[in-house]
Amino acid sequence: MFVKNAWYVAAWPREVTDKPLARVICGEPVVLYRDGAGAAVALRDMCCHRALPLSLGKIVGGNIQCGYHGYTYDGTGACVDIPGQSHIPEHARTRSYPVAEKFHCVWIWMGDAPANPAEIPALWWLDHAEWKPSTPDMAHLKCDYRLIMDNVLDATHLTYVHPTTIGASSIVAFEPEITHDERVVRISRWMLDRPPPPAYAKAGDFDGNADRWAAVEYWAPAVCVNFAGCVDVGHGGPGKDIRQSPRRVELVSINLPTPAEEGACHYFFAFARAFKHDDPEIDHFFGPGMVKVFEEDFGILEAQQRMLEKYPAEKRVSTIYDRGPAMARRMLERMVEAERG
Amino acid sequence: MFVKNAWYVAAWPREVTDKPLARVICGEPVVLYRDGAGAAVALRDMCCHRALPLSLGKIVGGNIQCGYHGYTYDGTGACVDIPGQSHIPEHARTRSYPVAEKFHCVWIWMGDAPANPAEIPALWWLDHAEWKPSTPDMAHLKCDYRLIMDNVLDATHLTYVHPTTIGASSIVAFEPEITHDERVVRISRWMLDRPPPPAYAKAGDFDGNADRWAAVEYWAPAVCVNFAGCVDVGHGGPGKDIRQSPRRVELVSINLPTPAEEGACHYFFAFARAFKHDDPEIDHFFGPGMVKVFEEDFGILEAQQRMLEKYPAEKRVSTIYDRGPAMARRMLERMVEAERG
Amino acid sequence: MFVKNAWYVAAWPREVTDKPLARVICGEPVVLYRDGAGAAVALRDMCCHRALPLSLGKIVGGNIQCGYHGYTYDGTGACVDIPGQSHIPEHARTRSYPVAEKFHCVWIWMGDAPANPAEIPALWWLDHAEWKPSTPDMAHLKCDYRLIMDNVLDATHLTYVHPTTIGASSIVAFEPEITHDERVVRISRWMLDRPPPPAYAKAGDFDGNADRWAAVEYWAPAVCVNFAGCVDVGHGGPGKDIRQSPRRVELVSINLPTPAEEGACHYFFAFARAFKHDDPEIDHFFGPGMVKVFEEDFGILEAQQRMLEKYPAEKRVSTIYDRGPAMARRMLERMVEAERG
Repeated sequence: MFVKNAWYVAAWPREVTDKPLARVICGEPVVLYRDGAGAAVALRDMCCHRALPLSLGKIVGGNIQCGYHGYTYDGTGACVDIPGQSHIPEHARTRSYPVAEKFHCVWIWMGDAPANPAEIPALWWLDHAEWKPSTPDMAHLKCDYRLIMDNVLDATHLTYVHPTTIGASSIVAFEPEITHDERVVRISRWMLDRPPPPAYAKAGDFDGNADRWAAVEYWAPAVCVNFAGCVDVGHGGPGKDIRQSPRRVELVSINLPTPAEEGACHYFFAFARAFKHDDPEIDHFFGPGMVKVFEEDFGILEAQQRMLEKYPAEKRVSTIYDRGPAMARRMLERMVEAERG
Repeated sequence: MFVKNAWYVAAWPREVTDKPLARVICGEPVVLYRDGAGAAVALRDMCCHRALPLSLGKIVGGNIQCGYHGYTYDGTGACVDIPGQSHIPEHARTRSYPVAEKFHCVWIWMGDAPANPAEIPALWWLDHAEWKPSTPDMAHLKCDYRLIMDNVLDATHLTYVHPTTIGASSIVAFEPEITHDERVVRISRWMLDRPPPPAYAKAGDFDGNADRWAAVEYWAPAVCVNFAGCVDVGHGGPGKDIRQSPRRVELVSINLPTPAEEGACHYFFAFARAFKHDDPEIDHFFGPGMVKVFEEDFGILEAQQRMLEKYPAEKRVSTIYDRGPAMARRMLERMVEAERG
Repeated sequence: MFVKNAWYVAAWPREVTDKPLARVICGEPVVLYRDGAGAAVALRDMCCHRALPLSLGKIVGGNIQCGYHGYTYDGTGACVDIPGQSHIPEHARTRSYPVAEKFHCVWIWMGDAPANPAEIPALWWLDHAEWKPSTPDMAHLKCDYRLIMDNVLDATHLTYVHPTTIGASSIVAFEPEITHDERVVRISRWMLDRPPPPAYAKAGDFDGNADRWAAVEYWAPAVCVNFAGCVDVGHGGPGKDIRQSPRRVELVSINLPTPAEEGACHYFFAFARAFKHDDPEIDHFFGPGMVKVFEEDFGILEAQQRMLEKYPAEKRVSTIYDRGPAMARRMLERMVEAERG
């Protein structure tokens, strides 16, 4: 069961062109393309005639034409041409989904409730002069999108999954502060005067301890933003202005796991940093290098999914670090229940 | 549900040899081979002992010997040898299916009603001096065999699926004449004084318009013959003798989609032409070239199948060109019902 | 349904190291490794926290550490470390399975009844000076483990599956003697003064007939030992001392098909011989050569499994040679029923 009345990332803008793009979202087949004016359009990816995916057709004059018998649909999903027949029946149409392009993402709204682009989560780091984003990426994973949230919301996995890059053993020694409101869970941790993870030490030229932070915000249903970094000892901690530190690593990683089907998702992710904008080595590290770090999670997530599918009834142990993920799950459950009415 | 009391093409004659050939037909495992006299034999492809496919065995003295413990069956399906045991139980047998070789096809009868080879559809073009057949071909497709009939019976798809070869946009402008009797649907179209499809123009040396025809006969349950071609303007149309035309392209394409299992079929197909018998370029075009044209349909048919499996309940729009396919479907449904009794 | 209260081979000793080994046994995920003292350990291969297979983790100080959040388990399955949390809940554990290393096999006990290593089947040939074992091997087969027992218990298949190596047509001419007790089925055959199989003739320098034997013992649920060989004519037969023969081929092949899941198994197998210990050509033949012979069965077994899954309801014919396999099946059924209580 997916929350349908919500904005999900459907694609990166560069993926949506005048060639149709097929993507299954929340269990529904979707085709994305740009119309004559360059605006992104999302339709149910199925011709109302013989059920062929419209994505096998082509864009003709800003409309999408089925590749089988030429039925043509406009951006509202209405069939506007049935070759060889002047009458177009009222019900000759496919579904159109609200789409919005914002913060360098193409968002889609899968539900029946009215869509309000003002409610799109503010991923402002992807569109702000002080932050330099990496080329955003995506992986089709065979796992429930919620496993990604569990993953991101419990940073203690960094020590075990990413020990040679962004992990550091000290993280498990610091209990996080957890707060939430109706749609957001916030988890934050200061780790003062501790060794930074290997990648941060290298990027920030740290040779000893640092004041580190690791925080994450979950915005239901499917946005997770990690805040991470370190500064010189003495410059970190609640209420401090980290930007006064001589050395500084300051990052966000943005996790956008859009449900595809049960047990499968499109894991969109992007990074941005607020230091050393013009350093090509750092560009590399927090671009392709971070993709490699994320790939360390993929095998874990898919193996976990296989186990949960095969042995669904097992009781599992929860610990203090699962409070954040558990809050997020309850939030999601309430949203699904509310939608079911 | 398949019509069982009917002749289906099981194989091309060249495929049936003294090496066993395994093929699933109408949901049943079948093994085909030639007996000592060279006659094609079809048996249920399962040893009555340990269920091994007989097709993993070999032909010994015109009989088929199981590759596991040597049980041997004759062409009637009776077990004639159980190594190490003189007594052969009455029920030691596998099913034998009626087979007939006619019109360069090996036909099989999967049902329980008596099989009459006189009822085999007359594909006489494959065996007639005025017609030159191409090497027949076959593709295992992951689609319901009826989707192939839908495809062949609605020629308007040519414009969109085969635009660079046998498609021409004018076809959608001409409504076909549709007639039927108990077992046959006939659809025919004259398109007078119109541009021929690219492939016909080239094959027939047409430089301007032509009188074209496109007709198809469906013989239930699983034979579809397309008639297509063009002649000089003025030589086509009802009642005209097309063979008086100075230029002429005259073709049949024979479609024999034999059901394998639910959602899968063996698409046998062959072409024959009644012009330019001795032109190697035309041989190529209406041989390997037409196979390429047919391959343009395969991706469409399998994508359509995937959608119908995944979203079976969707209502779909029908238009005037679907009358032919709809007639064929009703004919099939009546046959299935009649068989169920 | 598997017999759980029984010893199965889980691995060859060389497979169990300080790197975790994942293996599904009787439908359960198992991880095998060696602890700090070098003893083999088998745990349920699932972390009690987030269900990740423990086999994706690593061995740390003789314990296994989950690769996700570092939960660490000792050889009893008890969680001994939850990083970042001092309290370890009582139920934080995974299942531990009794393991024993004996006769060069690592055995596992999957059931709830007490495990007694004294009940491990005595595969003494693998550990005896008069017998030279080959390097044991294993194949993951997509077939019910019982199909392997059926195979091994009916030696008449040798004639048809292995005609160029260990098969000889005479085997079907000799009815075996079959006896059984509560847990063992014994089948034995003397074939006096007959041509030996090609491989035995070559290995034993036989140029004419020989006195041959082929016997098999099935020890429920999953051990089958073949005894095979030949001696000079006059030296074989009940009561004779085969070791007095000038020429002699004397072999055991040990079949240990451990159930993985329904329709899949791990087929462990090993060979040992009591002649020509120091002949490298014979080493090769009864090592890699016999593996090739076994591989001739694999395709048969998997094809049979596919047929039985697809057409489960078919009635099948049994003959005199099926008495042995049928006894074994009944023995197994009684064991399953007894376990269900």
